[in-house]
Amino acid sequence: MSSRRDFMQKRGNEGKGVALHPMTIPYSNLLEFTIAIFRRIGCPEKDAQTAAVTLLSADLRGIDSHGVARLIGYVRLHEAGRANPKPGVRIIHETPSTAVVDGDSGLGLVVAPYAMQVAIEKAEKVGTGWVSVQNSNHFGIAGYHALQAAKRDMIGVAMTNASALVAPTFSVERLLGTNPMCFAIPAGEEPAFVADLATTTAANGKLEILQRKSEEAPLGWIQDRDGNPSIDPHALKSGGALLPLGGDRDHGSHKGYSLGAVVDILSAVLSGANYGPWVPPFPAYVPMPTNMPGKGIGHFLGAMRVDAFRPADEFKRHMDNWIRRFRSAKPAPGHDKVLIPGDPEREMEAERLAAGIPLLPSVVEDLKALGAKLGVGFPG
Amino acid sequence: MSSRRDFMQKRGNEGKGVALHPMTIPYSNLLEFTIAIFRRIGCPEKDAQTAAVTLLSADLRGIDSHGVARLIGYVRLHEAGRANPKPGVRIIHETPSTAVVDGDSGLGLVVAPYAMQVAIEKAEKVGTGWVSVQNSNHFGIAGYHALQAAKRDMIGVAMTNASALVAPTFSVERLLGTNPMCFAIPAGEEPAFVADLATTTAANGKLEILQRKSEEAPLGWIQDRDGNPSIDPHALKSGGALLPLGGDRDHGSHKGYSLGAVVDILSAVLSGANYGPWVPPFPAYVPMPTNMPGKGIGHFLGAMRVDAFRPADEFKRHMDNWIRRFRSAKPAPGHDKVLIPGDPEREMEAERLAAGIPLLPSVVEDLKALGAKLGVGFPG
Repeated sequence: MSSRRDFMQKRGNEGKGVALHPMTIPYSNLLEFTIAIFRRIGCPEKDAQTAAVTLLSADLRGIDSHGVARLIGYVRLHEAGRANPKPGVRIIHETPSTAVVDGDSGLGLVVAPYAMQVAIEKAEKVGTGWVSVQNSNHFGIAGYHALQAAKRDMIGVAMTNASALVAPTFSVERLLGTNPMCFAIPAGEEPAFVADLATTTAANGKLEILQRKSEEAPLGWIQDRDGNPSIDPHALKSGGALLPLGGDRDHGSHKGYSLGAVVDILSAVLSGANYGPWVPPFPAYVPMPTNMPGKGIGHFLGAMRVDAFRPADEFKRHMDNWIRRFRSAKPAPGHDKVLIPGDPEREMEAERLAAGIPLLPSVVEDLKALGAKLGVGFPG
Repeated sequence: MSSRRDFMQKRGNEGKGVALHPMTIPYSNLLEFTIAIFRRIGCPEKDAQTAAVTLLSADLRGIDSHGVARLIGYVRLHEAGRANPKPGVRIIHETPSTAVVDGDSGLGLVVAPYAMQVAIEKAEKVGTGWVSVQNSNHFGIAGYHALQAAKRDMIGVAMTNASALVAPTFSVERLLGTNPMCFAIPAGEEPAFVADLATTTAANGKLEILQRKSEEAPLGWIQDRDGNPSIDPHALKSGGALLPLGGDRDHGSHKGYSLGAVVDILSAVLSGANYGPWVPPFPAYVPMPTNMPGKGIGHFLGAMRVDAFRPADEFKRHMDNWIRRFRSAKPAPGHDKVLIPGDPEREMEAERLAAGIPLLPSVVEDLKALGAKLGVGFPG
C-alpha cells in the first residue's frame, strides 16, 4: 500500500491531475455493488453473492490486481458469450476421494467454490478430497479457495492455470500462465499459514505497477522477444515473457517452470480443460487460441482433514509451535521480523475491513461507467 | 557430468595427483556391493535390496550427491544408533485415503518405499492415497519414490524434510532443510514427466562441487552469517545459509521459503516427526538438536490414480500432447531445445545403466575402506 500511495503522490506531483490518494470505499458497499453487477448479468442471487465475496477477497487481502478492478473484465467475458451466468455446474466423474467438475463455462468465482465444497465433503468421508475442474473461467485468488478448507480443520490446496505469459527455461515462447498454487494450513491459537504464490518470479500485478510508474523491473522478472534478460516492464507487450520463479537457469528457473507445469497438468490435463498455450485469455478482446484441446480453463482443489493424520489438537499445537519458532527467528539486518506466509494478507484484510478498500481513480471510473451501463449506482 | 569431468581434469592439471577421470563401476556390481553393506549392518535381505536400489537410483539419475557417496553416512547413522536395521515399520493412524507411518528409526531408503506402497494401495481403493511419515531417516531422492506411483498410472508425490541449512526470507537463522518436492506424472508414448526439485535456489550438491573447485557461487545461492549476499561457497561452514528458491525478496525468495515450509509441515507437523530447526542432521558426528518436538525426520508421499479423474488413455494422450508441445517450443538463442522435467535424469539413467556409474576417487577410497571394515570386497 505504501508503494501505491507513493506512486499516487508521485503522479500527483507530476501534475497529471489525478487524485493524490485513492478513493476508499467501505467493504460492505463495494460488496453490495458487486453483487448487483453480477445479478444484472444474469447470475442467480446465490451465485451473485458467491462471486462477489470471492472476487472481493482479493481486495481485502491486498491483491488488488485480482479484485474488483477485474469486475469489468468478468462482465466483458459474459458479453463475449464466454461466461455463462447460469451454469449447470456438475460432477462428471468421481471416486470416493476424487472428482472432475464441469463448470459449464460459468464464472470461476462460482465454479471453484462449488468444487472446493465437493473436495471438503469427500475429505469429511474418506480423509481427503481432490477435485480437478474443466470448463471454467478465472477463479480470483487461490488463497480464498484454500482457506475454505482451512476453516474446517483441513489443509486446503488450490491451483489454477491461466493464459500463457511465461516462457519455459531456454525458450522464447510463452507456454504457461502465472499458474498460482496455494496451501492453507490451519493452526490453533495462531492464524492459518497461507502460502499463495504465482509460480513466476513476480506476479503480473507487480509488473503492472512498474508499467504505470514506467520504472525498470529487476533483472530476472522478464525477458524480451528474443529471450534476452530485460528490465523493460513493457517487454511483454512486444513479444517478451514473464520468467518462471528462479529467473534464470543458474538461479533455478527450471524449478519455477516445473512447478508452473505441475499446476497446468493437475488443473487441466487431469480435468479435460485447456493447457499450455491453449488456455483462453482473460481479456475478452484477445482472440481465442485455435485447435484448443480441452474446455475452458482448469483448476485443482484439494482438502485434507488434519485429523485424518493425527488428532487435530495435537496438529494445531505443533503448528502453533512451528509458527512461533519461525516468527521469532533472528531477523537479518534491516528487517524487524520473519514473516509467516499469510501474515501480510491477513493484516491487510483486518485493516481494509475496518478502513475500507482503496481504489485507484482509474478503477473508480471503470466501475462508475459499468454501474451506469447496467443501472447500478456506484457507492463512491 | 561434463562439469565433473572438467573439474577432475582441472585438479589433475593442478598436479594434485588425483585421477584425470573418475572410476566407472557397472551398476550391477555397485548394487551387489551396496546390498552386501546393508546386509552387514543387519538389514534383512529384502530391506538390504530395497535400500540399495533406492540409494543407487540417485547415482543412475545423475544426482551423485545423494547416491552411493552417502553409503558411509548411512552406515555411520547405524553405528551411532540412529538407524534401526530391523525396524517395525507400521501404520499408526489411517483413514481410507490417508495414513501416518511410524518408521521406527529405520532407513528412509526402506521406510519411504513402504509408505509409498501404502499410498498406492489406498489410491487403488479410493482414488488417492496420502501418507505422512514420522520417525524415519533420509530417503535418498524424492524422484525414486514418486516414480513408483507413475509406473502404475498414478501421479506420484514425494517430499521430505531435512536438517536446517536454509534461512527464511529476512532471517539469518537456518530453519529449513533443502526440503525437496517431486511430482511424477505418467504419459503415454512419452516418458513420465518428473519434476524433482529442492526448494532452494541451488541444491547442496551443486555447492559442494564449487567448494571442491574453490569457485565462486552465483549471487542468490547463499548468504553469510550476517545475512549479506555471499559468493563464498564455504560460507555455510562459517554460519551462513542456503537461500530459498528465488534468492532474494525481489526475486521471490518468500515463495521458495513458503514451499520449503509446506514440505516441512506436510512431512513432519502432519506426521509427528521433527520440523524446522529440530530435524536430525544426516552426518552422525553433528550433535542432535535439543528439545526435539517429534520423532526422526518426516516424509510425505502421495499417489493419485489418473483414472480417478478421467480415462487413463485420454489422460495419457493429452500428456503426450503437452510434452510434445513444450519439447518443440522455440528455443532461446544458445539453446537447442526446451527440456521436459525428468528428461535429463532419464537420459543419464540410460547412459549409466549401459556405461556404468562414474565415481570420484575420494568416493572410491571411502567405499573400499567401508568394504574392508565390513568384510565386503569392493568391485572396482
